[in-house]
Amino acid sequence: MTTTTLRTADAWYVQTASGAARIDTDATTTAQLLDDREAITAAMARTDTVAVENLTLLSPVTAPCRLVAQMTNFASHVTDAGMNPNTIPLTFFRKASGSISAPDADVVRPAHVHLLDYEVEIGIVIGREVPVGAEITHENLADHVAGLVVANDVSARDVQLPQTQFYEAKSYPTFTPVGPALVLLDRDELKRFTDLRLRLWVNGEPRQDMTVADMIYSPVQALQALARFQHLDAGDLLLTGTPVGTALSAPSAPIAFLASLLPPALRWKVFLGRQRKNPKYLQDGDVIEATVATDDGAIDLGQQRTTVRWTG
Amino acid sequence: MTTTTLRTADAWYVQTASGAARIDTDATTTAQLLDDREAITAAMARTDTVAVENLTLLSPVTAPCRLVAQMTNFASHVTDAGMNPNTIPLTFFRKASGSISAPDADVVRPAHVHLLDYEVEIGIVIGREVPVGAEITHENLADHVAGLVVANDVSARDVQLPQTQFYEAKSYPTFTPVGPALVLLDRDELKRFTDLRLRLWVNGEPRQDMTVADMIYSPVQALQALARFQHLDAGDLLLTGTPVGTALSAPSAPIAFLASLLPPALRWKVFLGRQRKNPKYLQDGDVIEATVATDDGAIDLGQQRTTVRWTG
Repeated sequence: MTTTTLRTADAWYVQTASGAARIDTDATTTAQLLDDREAITAAMARTDTVAVENLTLLSPVTAPCRLVAQMTNFASHVTDAGMNPNTIPLTFFRKASGSISAPDADVVRPAHVHLLDYEVEIGIVIGREVPVGAEITHENLADHVAGLVVANDVSARDVQLPQTQFYEAKSYPTFTPVGPALVLLDRDELKRFTDLRLRLWVNGEPRQDMTVADMIYSPVQALQALARFQHLDAGDLLLTGTPVGTALSAPSAPIAFLASLLPPALRWKVFLGRQRKNPKYLQDGDVIEATVATDDGAIDLGQQRTTVRWTG
Repeated sequence: MTTTTLRTADAWYVQTASGAARIDTDATTTAQLLDDREAITAAMARTDTVAVENLTLLSPVTAPCRLVAQMTNFASHVTDAGMNPNTIPLTFFRKASGSISAPDADVVRPAHVHLLDYEVEIGIVIGREVPVGAEITHENLADHVAGLVVANDVSARDVQLPQTQFYEAKSYPTFTPVGPALVLLDRDELKRFTDLRLRLWVNGEPRQDMTVADMIYSPVQALQALARFQHLDAGDLLLTGTPVGTALSAPSAPIAFLASLLPPALRWKVFLGRQRKNPKYLQDGDVIEATVATDDGAIDLGQQRTTVRWTG
């Protein structure tokens, strides 16, 4: 049985058969909560629970933390972008952890952004320090992974593509809704990672729906590569990539070839102008729903529901 | 008169006319030192100084901190890369702050890296919190900038270019030598930023030599852009880009055109194979010296001297 933890403005909860039981802990950060497993276990036995629907949930991952993300990591997404999954290097980038927001928060589009896109992802929450040079194996993976969360890697495509670096375009405040829950997994449960299905809807219309079987680099490969250069601590968050179905889609081969003949600045102008006619980009008031779960429901990270707000 | 602060394993120092005076402070981080200006001022009056040459200096910027860097930000570097300085967007990426090392530390090349390159840069040390949404102006810039450091943005080009994201290639341990000094500047001194000259030598051979007049986006523009999405605190470090002269140089236009006809994986193989014959990449035992100063010496960030070590 997985352990589902929740966070509100003033408390941590764990989900039991009867509802949400308050955890008796002084923890204010995710790292501190993960260090207080006894309090989580003790709360599981409580009978004075509240209905989860009555809680105003915040992200179960607290900021500041290290927020690292994997670039194109689903074969379907890579193929859709006109690339070959067999030659895609395992690549990371950083997001500002100030972009983390609640699972029902508004996704606020800055006034200078026009092409706002979504990416449902599985977030891995680190449970134990990973020093640079640590050897991560299939055997010790579960020692370093505390659990999983639903995340949306919101992206300003008109910033991301001309800049080429993904950092700013994915770091604006509210660009990483996380939750509703941090689901703690034991060694055996973590083995079912591949069975997880990621789904995302905009205004009820299905946009993304794919299982982890489509993922190129597994969590063990990702943490092995990260451990070459990035120290990680408990409470840090790794986003593992998104499947096909985002608003951004690659141009057809003939159009891409014609575009390659233009100078870079003009090429982006033409491309971004064309994209602005694409109705799949997020509009003011759009409702985004995202879930991650195994089809049999044995692991269920819950559902987030956010609303897009345009400023300016 | 600028104020030159230094750090060793167990103390902070300030440079005086007679030598290095120990600062009576409990600070263990750069942020804490910057919060203890009275102790720095008091140490300036001390007469019991030691010779700076006798100190074993560490980076005056402590980790962990936020380490943000600007992409191609010198017109000479952009032109050399075959691009147009007028259409280069102001772009940031992150480095792991675990890459920060001492100003005389070895630069250690991981065994899987073959194209090791150097980039002398000016590092801006944040002196006061910059919340997202803060308005940075020419008038308040000095309130947020504590001072400057010499930095080397060491880069594994054979990781950086195929990945496209710069994060891993520039984040390995020892890939950001910082120092020797953190030079604190007042409002008027900061106005001379444009007069600073960056220089770098490999084994005594000049490789980079250019003033900030060649810089595309100024610190005020950079902080304005960063404040759109990245919260900064005192002690965080912003690297402001490097001028022409790195080992990596763009291929000539005809070669670039022929390469553009190849599939991406093969294109990189050909390019990286050619680059391995380029003798400017760093070799085992190479000595890198880097300085930043105004030509009249009114502002002098000092000299760092590191040695390249290949592993594997």
